[in-house]
Amino acid sequence: MKHGLPDFPCGPLDIYRKKASFNWKDMVIFLEGEDELALKQHVFRTLENDPVFARQPGEDLTTEKMREVTFRRCKQLFRYNFLTHDDVMANPWRMVVLNDCLGMYDVSLSAKYFLNKGMFGGTVANTGSQRNRQFVQDVEDMMTFGCFALTELSHGSNTRAMRTTAKYDPSTQEFVINSPDFEAAKFWVGNLGKTATHAVVFARLYTPDGACHGLHSFIVQVRDPKTLLAMPGVMVGDMGKKLGQNGLDNGFAVFNNVRIPRENMLNKTGDVSPEGLYITPFKDPNKRFGASLGALSSGRVSITRMAVVNLKLALTVAIRFSATRRQFGPKEDEEIPVLEYQLQQWRLIPYLSALYALDHFSKSIFVNFVEFQLGMMTKDSSERQAELGREIHAISCASKPLGSWTAQKGIQECREACGGHGYLAMNRLGIIRDDNDPNCTYEGDNNVLLQQTSNYLLSQLHAKQRDGVRIASPLESVNFLDDFDSILKTRFTAASVEQCMDSKVPLAAYKWLVCFLLRESQRRLAQEKASGKADFEARNNSQKPAAANHHDPSVNIILCNNSDGEVFYCRSLSVVYIEHTVLQRFHDKTRDGDTPPGLRPVLRQLCALYGLWSLNNHMATLYQGGYFSGWEPADWIQRAILTLCAQLKDEAVALVDVVAPPDFILNSPIGKADGELYKNLWSTVMQGHKVLERPSWWAEFTSNKPVVGSLRANL
Amino acid sequence: MKHGLPDFPCGPLDIYRKKASFNWKDMVIFLEGEDELALKQHVFRTLENDPVFARQPGEDLTTEKMREVTFRRCKQLFRYNFLTHDDVMANPWRMVVLNDCLGMYDVSLSAKYFLNKGMFGGTVANTGSQRNRQFVQDVEDMMTFGCFALTELSHGSNTRAMRTTAKYDPSTQEFVINSPDFEAAKFWVGNLGKTATHAVVFARLYTPDGACHGLHSFIVQVRDPKTLLAMPGVMVGDMGKKLGQNGLDNGFAVFNNVRIPRENMLNKTGDVSPEGLYITPFKDPNKRFGASLGALSSGRVSITRMAVVNLKLALTVAIRFSATRRQFGPKEDEEIPVLEYQLQQWRLIPYLSALYALDHFSKSIFVNFVEFQLGMMTKDSSERQAELGREIHAISCASKPLGSWTAQKGIQECREACGGHGYLAMNRLGIIRDDNDPNCTYEGDNNVLLQQTSNYLLSQLHAKQRDGVRIASPLESVNFLDDFDSILKTRFTAASVEQCMDSKVPLAAYKWLVCFLLRESQRRLAQEKASGKADFEARNNSQKPAAANHHDPSVNIILCNNSDGEVFYCRSLSVVYIEHTVLQRFHDKTRDGDTPPGLRPVLRQLCALYGLWSLNNHMATLYQGGYFSGWEPADWIQRAILTLCAQLKDEAVALVDVVAPPDFILNSPIGKADGELYKNLWSTVMQGHKVLERPSWWAEFTSNKPVVGSLRANL
Repeated sequence: MKHGLPDFPCGPLDIYRKKASFNWKDMVIFLEGEDELALKQHVFRTLENDPVFARQPGEDLTTEKMREVTFRRCKQLFRYNFLTHDDVMANPWRMVVLNDCLGMYDVSLSAKYFLNKGMFGGTVANTGSQRNRQFVQDVEDMMTFGCFALTELSHGSNTRAMRTTAKYDPSTQEFVINSPDFEAAKFWVGNLGKTATHAVVFARLYTPDGACHGLHSFIVQVRDPKTLLAMPGVMVGDMGKKLGQNGLDNGFAVFNNVRIPRENMLNKTGDVSPEGLYITPFKDPNKRFGASLGALSSGRVSITRMAVVNLKLALTVAIRFSATRRQFGPKEDEEIPVLEYQLQQWRLIPYLSALYALDHFSKSIFVNFVEFQLGMMTKDSSERQAELGREIHAISCASKPLGSWTAQKGIQECREACGGHGYLAMNRLGIIRDDNDPNCTYEGDNNVLLQQTSNYLLSQLHAKQRDGVRIASPLESVNFLDDFDSILKTRFTAASVEQCMDSKVPLAAYKWLVCFLLRESQRRLAQEKASGKADFEARNNSQKPAAANHHDPSVNIILCNNSDGEVFYCRSLSVVYIEHTVLQRFHDKTRDGDTPPGLRPVLRQLCALYGLWSLNNHMATLYQGGYFSGWEPADWIQRAILTLCAQLKDEAVALVDVVAPPDFILNSPIGKADGELYKNLWSTVMQGHKVLERPSWWAEFTSNKPVVGSLRANL
Repeated sequence: MKHGLPDFPCGPLDIYRKKASFNWKDMVIFLEGEDELALKQHVFRTLENDPVFARQPGEDLTTEKMREVTFRRCKQLFRYNFLTHDDVMANPWRMVVLNDCLGMYDVSLSAKYFLNKGMFGGTVANTGSQRNRQFVQDVEDMMTFGCFALTELSHGSNTRAMRTTAKYDPSTQEFVINSPDFEAAKFWVGNLGKTATHAVVFARLYTPDGACHGLHSFIVQVRDPKTLLAMPGVMVGDMGKKLGQNGLDNGFAVFNNVRIPRENMLNKTGDVSPEGLYITPFKDPNKRFGASLGALSSGRVSITRMAVVNLKLALTVAIRFSATRRQFGPKEDEEIPVLEYQLQQWRLIPYLSALYALDHFSKSIFVNFVEFQLGMMTKDSSERQAELGREIHAISCASKPLGSWTAQKGIQECREACGGHGYLAMNRLGIIRDDNDPNCTYEGDNNVLLQQTSNYLLSQLHAKQRDGVRIASPLESVNFLDDFDSILKTRFTAASVEQCMDSKVPLAAYKWLVCFLLRESQRRLAQEKASGKADFEARNNSQKPAAANHHDPSVNIILCNNSDGEVFYCRSLSVVYIEHTVLQRFHDKTRDGDTPPGLRPVLRQLCALYGLWSLNNHMATLYQGGYFSGWEPADWIQRAILTLCAQLKDEAVALVDVVAPPDFILNSPIGKADGELYKNLWSTVMQGHKVLERPSWWAEFTSNKPVVGSLRANL
């Protein structure tokens, strides 16, 4: 019971557990921290001990039923109130720990809970004022239930095109909310389908003088909390089944002359006086811009983390399966675990390295974000604070895509690597994949967001070239660009496979890649501009592709242009920048004096593997730009990847033990900690609903036999 | 109504339809054929007009209900009997057309229908004898229902390790079937969950002398057709919910001394005499081996096709969505379709080119397979027939992975490219993805199968080097390897972006790639063998990774070895070989004199794009091996891809019109042919189940309010 962590039951996984080079409990403490671990175990134990949270692997609930049980569980969370406001203020990371725990149990539940308290309550608290305080208190007491309504049926990414209106009527001192038509219905709003009584609604504000002041937000009551029936003038409903997250009731609302008090406008950045005059506090627009970019990063920082959590679940299942599933062997009667096969290692272990790299990254960026938020709360108006906002924006616009796609692909690989058993719903890989999927879409489509990051990098280089300023950012993620010219002259210098097995090697290559792609992107944009195909600035505003964006007004703020080759240069630029950032942070961690010596070797292997495996996607560019030449670099890097996979396969079970939740939370027979793959699978199958019964419609088979061809028509 | 094809309703898609360079109906006729088109339309119309097949987009059925409606629909198919035995004999492609149509409607339905008639009926007919004729007749009349039981709970890929036994008892002239334990339960058997009365069961045959004769197949009755209750000694049940294909009831069976008549053994390749002697017709093992490889390709040939069909559905939805979804634009008030954005084109249009390439390929390989089957039926014992079997095996072991993965990735891209609306179940992209997913797994895990293909290629080269024979195969897919040395000396010679936009360019690069990776794979294997890390032959038998394989005994026949770098060389070798084959066949088609001149330009653009886009994944190797050098090749190829995407975006809507089923079959509001994206989506949402009603559990919200923190425990 070291650190209060129970030992695992003896069983088929012992072989691998004994092979690990490190003590998994030490790793847990190092990565989690004592305080956070205690919270985590408390939350997990509480859920396991409360029948409200009981479930069966692979249970087959209707969408309606899923919404009901999720609501009941959400309600129970109010009773547990795992974190008070003071708990969070004392250690903001606890909020993430709680969200991790609930998300591991069921993403719908964590989403439902945080959309109410965080998205509704948090938005009202942060963008409203004292007059809106009661709304916050009410959702915290579950007297009401909140949601956040930005996206419309026909507009997601292009938030400026939202069409819901809020017209001020000074005669009654009310706003009148209208949806001009069904295409302007608020759509995709989490909690709005069945539960929400109040919504933060984004609408174009019109004052009595006819002026439009753009998008502002308002608290609109949509249902009566006493009856859950819709308020007059509001048509509100449930969008129906989604690919996943069906415990969360996404919904729509159409407003027909819905009147709300003047005070329901969230007035931090703009307000309307009782007489109907628009008032806005004047501020330095540049600093406000940086600040608002930073603030909008919150969702993307969280999503990056959520994706990591999903990947933890999937890899726990797939690695434990691979360590206990035996197939073929050196002798006729002796089969070996499939984890022993190079191919299986190559499929899974790089994702394990990505998991460790991204886990560390998602923590460190959260710390950065908290620093930024503290600056906001203390009204820090320094240049650094604004720059920090810009940098976090650029990082999170790329880390959300990297995290969600890595999870998406990794979970799918886990599903396939578990073969047919991975396709059985009870083993949960499908649910994990489906619940992770929207991470690629909400808070900005991944591909669209990546344009924000490349623009940030281009602007950094541009400033240096134009003004000769030194490139330096608060989080130092772009500082190396100051050596742009000398980095571009570097070349691959490792002299053997062994030398490649150090994260320094991919790290150096990444620095070159960022500089190379930055130079090429810049060159393309200049060519385009010079060729005058279209007005540069004008075209800037026309380059946004599709995809709904649930609640993020930022994505239309800066726009990248769309020159020939942009996809292959600007997009790749953003990807290599974020991969470099993630790798650099993990690399530093493995070199950090605070990292226990017993854990360093395995962490360094993971770091090297992550770097090389990611780099493998960019080898064509490395050759194209001359960083690589000849036959060896690609060959050595690939051999180094396979060698590291082979070394890490003996650590793999312990590495997932570190990140795995208890069996009750994981809820996957083939992923259980005892490794009794078939016993667990079989007993779950046998306890299924009506598993051995003949079907209710059996008579349909036995009677009224079809006359073959009786309905056949001649063509 | 040209060719009996109705015109599309006027609407928002007209703009793009008018831009197309070709007549979509001419393309349909060219690709489908008059006869096949008539069958297709007849099947589609029949389903649409019969209320048994009625459904609602996004309907939320339980697994049990899905199994019921699928069975009822399957039963109705017997009444329609769209294809008689004679129909199929006259034109075997009709079978594929019917399967396409049913699969477009619902993959579970086509699987249920064909597992019964094809897998059970076909196996009994082809591997049994006259004495088993009645079993075939009974499933064709739906007096009984069949399934195919090979995979066991603990064994998929390694079929030799199957543990179910069939012991012959001469005293009663019966076989006694036993499952030694639950790990040997037959598992994953389609139709066995609820419906099957009879199974083809694979078991190890023991004769009274105690000798084991390996895996043979037997007809075992598992349920009483009068009651659908299990037969004595058989424990049979339903495995429960899967990620997809939930209309199909996959099941398990455990046998406890189940006795079956001697005649129930399928005795084409081996039999037991009444006295208990094992009898097998002696044949040239080499030729029989080639023949059996070919025969086992049937499933993989079908799966390649099924994946193409899934991709057709997904692309129809995503392209029509992208042509009608407008977001941002050059002016404030004017938004443009997202299909106009380079990024959206780059995401979707290459998959459209892959669809056309793979559609043609899946047809042509079917024609090859029919030729092979005719040889089997006429007992062709020529060397060519055996070689044809080997080549089809090698091709299908790579085309199934290529097809299923291309579909898997393409469908996911379509889902993401439709943003949030793609995540709504009613739009069907999730169902398409989930139904396609097992294509990556059954009939052999994709990664495992690829090893078969590289072995075939290595053996071809080896034979030439050892015996000096000319490399020439019946389908000519490897003939170019005879110029191995001179191809390895070729280099990239295109001189501009424009020159790259011809499929000749990627085709030449692919020939070099196959030769290069073949040489490198061979070198690696030789090094491994020389280094004597382990006995080559012994290791051959230990190199199979995991993953269930539902009904394919072939995957353990030939084994690839597992040297360092195998993943990066052997696996890539198989991939480039099949991409080359697909590209070559499509390229030839676009040059064919029979291809109407009006269709050639767009087909050539598709062909060039497919080749370049696929090649883009191998550019590191092209540089590594010196086929590419300098900055231009990668740059030009990427520019050519984007240019072709831009050219094809005006053809894209017409290109999906060609492959799209009618709206009733497609069953996706955002993919409807009228292009009225929002009207269709909105009306479907509004007709959902209880969409505007408050939830049944509303009182749970309004009463018994939680006392916040009442259950809070101190840590």
